[in-house]
Parts: sequence; structure tokens; C-alpha cells
Amino acid sequence: MSRGAGEQVVRFSLCGCLGASSLERFPEWLNHPEVELLEWRMDRFAGKFSPAEMKLFCEALRGKPRRSLIATNRPVRQMGDFTGQERLRLGMLEEAARCGAEWVDLEHDAGADNIVRLKEAGARVLLSWHNPAETPPGKVLREKLEEMAKLGADALKMATFAQTAEDNLRVLALIPFAKKEWGIDLVAFCMGPMGKWSRLASLCVGSPWTYVRLEGQYETAPGQFSARELRALLDAVVS
Amino acid sequence: MSRGAGEQVVRFSLCGCLGASSLERFPEWLNHPEVELLEWRMDRFAGKFSPAEMKLFCEALRGKPRRSLIATNRPVRQMGDFTGQERLRLGMLEEAARCGAEWVDLEHDAGADNIVRLKEAGARVLLSWHNPAETPPGKVLREKLEEMAKLGADALKMATFAQTAEDNLRVLALIPFAKKEWGIDLVAFCMGPMGKWSRLASLCVGSPWTYVRLEGQYETAPGQFSARELRALLDAVVS
Repeated sequence: MSRGAGEQVVRFSLCGCLGASSLERFPEWLNHPEVELLEWRMDRFAGKFSPAEMKLFCEALRGKPRRSLIATNRPVRQMGDFTGQERLRLGMLEEAARCGAEWVDLEHDAGADNIVRLKEAGARVLLSWHNPAETPPGKVLREKLEEMAKLGADALKMATFAQTAEDNLRVLALIPFAKKEWGIDLVAFCMGPMGKWSRLASLCVGSPWTYVRLEGQYETAPGQFSARELRALLDAVVS
Repeated sequence: MSRGAGEQVVRFSLCGCLGASSLERFPEWLNHPEVELLEWRMDRFAGKFSPAEMKLFCEALRGKPRRSLIATNRPVRQMGDFTGQERLRLGMLEEAARCGAEWVDLEHDAGADNIVRLKEAGARVLLSWHNPAETPPGKVLREKLEEMAKLGADALKMATFAQTAEDNLRVLALIPFAKKEWGIDLVAFCMGPMGKWSRLASLCVGSPWTYVRLEGQYETAPGQFSARELRALLDAVVS
């Protein structure tokens, strides 16, 4: 084999989760030095949103320089904290998109028309599916993935709960599979203590980013590494 | 889900590679504090062996306390340094077994009669297969594994060279597969820069041990972590 065969050329992105900040500190978080990307968990933000506050958040988004942003407004049915009406939930995402959020995370069951609508509002759509209880068999996962891949999103996300070590392998295998089958980027990993390593390994097999905890923010999902921990792990496992 | 579901209960073993020591320091290495297991790469030992030296090595093996030992005498056809006759090579392994080595690493093509012979000499047999150039398709890997599983060894080892990220997933999936199909332990991982993370992940999916470099010893294969590095990584990824 030639020297250099198998060398790692992938660029790794960490996505820091913002779930517990107040309006005052929002602009500062938006340019966090440890990550390439931020997820704004609108459903977990302290105080939630009045229309006036949303306007201030939007102003902060227009400020530069800042990291790219994924706006997420997770409903209770998908492990989130948003308890209001679906119409209001989607409206907040649309507003985030109009204010310049580069990505919007939309749940797998939100409907194809909402994907179109959020794209028209200017964001790329990350279509997501979470299973907080288990990891279904490979066939079920691939069928779910195919169903999602056909809806016209810009990227997909699948996160399941690992009950066994093998669960991780089944989920990680979906990443190169989605790329080959439909040319689409997939963020996929397992949650829970047995899935922790899959958050690192997902980057090694082609996930465009992985989610990390930022100091001063709480974990948004069980098993999350801090940005520093994950960066150190990456430095160690990638030559 | 109940609290504690999916918790990691596996015990992880690191196997330190001894490939460059001299007779004088051998007893000291045999009780290395950073690993649970040692691989004695007989083919790489400085000065190789005269019959008188082999006798002294054997005396060191009988000394206690020491770590469990895998005696390996890798021929050139499987990436090793041993260039002598096959009869002599196997004779050295048999002598190591008679002197108390708990394991003997035997190449996949060494023949079933030699597995029996080394077991009779008192060691457990780790049947190994290396592909330093590539990672064959899953079907080929599983066929090779099945062929090896039927020969009566106590555990199996498969190490291939990773050319793509997916290569790692195919090889790692063999570990739970071997356990389910034949109830046999498999040490499996990918070599090379793209395979580095599989040396860590292999433990997470049930490999009985992984190979590490010891300070003062050179890497015996490309991509090996040091014992300290791997222990730190394990601490980070296993809750």
C-alpha cells in the first residue's frame, strides 16, 4: 500500500447546545470559540419567548461574526420541552429562519409542506427522529431513514437509545448508507451511557457534526461530551 | 426506561505489546502496572533466542506475580519478523506454552493439528488473521471467521487495514456476531490511521482486550495507542 493510504481527510464539526441562556448572554454564546456550530434549543430557553424577546433574539442573530446556528424547538413528543400549539412552535422556527438561522431542525412527523415552508424562509432543514427508549432493528431503521430521505430535507438526524453495544454499530452504519443511497448527510448516534462512544465514532464515519455540551450550559441529552472533552478525544483517535 | 438501563458492565483489558526488550528487563516488563495482559512478540525480541536464552525466558515466566501472557511468534507472511523454519517457529510457541504462557497466538493457516498440540502444551489458543492491505467485504470476513471458528481455538483475532471509515464498522460488527453465532470471543479492529478509533470501539462492542503500546516499547502495529492514552479514552467514553 502507498504511504498515506487511508489518511483521514474529513473536517469535524462540533455543535454546541444552547439550552439555558438568557437574552442578555445570547450574543456572547453565538460566537462561542470551542464549536463550529450552535444549536439553539428554543424550547429550553429560560423565560421562553414573548414577541418582544423574539425580536431581540433576531437582532442578535443578525450580528456578526457568529457561528452557524441550528434553530430547534423540540416538542414533548420528541423529548423536548415545548408544550404549546404546533402552529406556534413552527411559527417560532420560521421566524428564526427569517432572522438568519442557517438551519432549522424539524421533526420527522412535521409534514413535507413545513419543510418547503421553512426552506422558503431561508434555512436549510435538518429532519430529525429520536427514539429515547430503544434502537430498533436495522431494517426498521433503514425504512425510517428512507421515508425521511424522500421528503426533501437538506440533512437528516437519527438518535436512538442504546441498550446494547451493537445498537451503536447499527446506527453508525446508517451514516455511510445514507450517503451512498441518497447522497444525503446524516447525523446519527446513540443516546445513553452505552451510546456515549458513538457520539465520537459518528464523526469518524462521516457524520457532518456531533452535539456537545458547552460549559455553563446543561446537557441537552444523556451521554453528551463537553466540547473540550470531545475535541481532546478527536485529537487522540484521529491521526 | 428504568434508571440504569444500558449501563456498561464489561470489564476492559489492555494487552501491552512486548517487542523490543532484552532478557535482563524481561521479568520487570512481565509485571507491568498499566495493563492486564502482555503480548510477547518473540519474533521481534532483540537478539532473538539461543536455547540457553529461551531457558532464561522460561524461568522468568515461572516467576510470580506477573501478568497473563500471550506468546506470539509472527511469521513474515502475517506481518511478523520471524524468518526461520515453520517447525522451529511452532516449537518456540510450544516451549512458551510449556513454560506457562497462558495464551499462544497461532496464525489462521497454521493447521488444526497445531491448535491441538499447543493446547496440550497447556496454553489457550488465539487463532489470528491479519490483512495489512485492506478490509474485505462483510461476506468474505464472515466466511473467514466461520472457517476459523470451527477449528477449536479458544478465541479469535481479526485485524485488517482500514481504507475507509466504513471498514471499521464491518470489522467491529464481527465481534457481537462471533459471540452470537459460536459463543466465541473475538478481538477485532482495523489497523492504520483510519482504523485508530476501532481499537477503542472494539472494547465497547465486546472485544475481550485491545492491544496497546507500552512506553519504552515501539508500536507493533500502525495506529496503536499507548496504554495511558487508551485508559484515558476509556475513562472518557464509558460512563
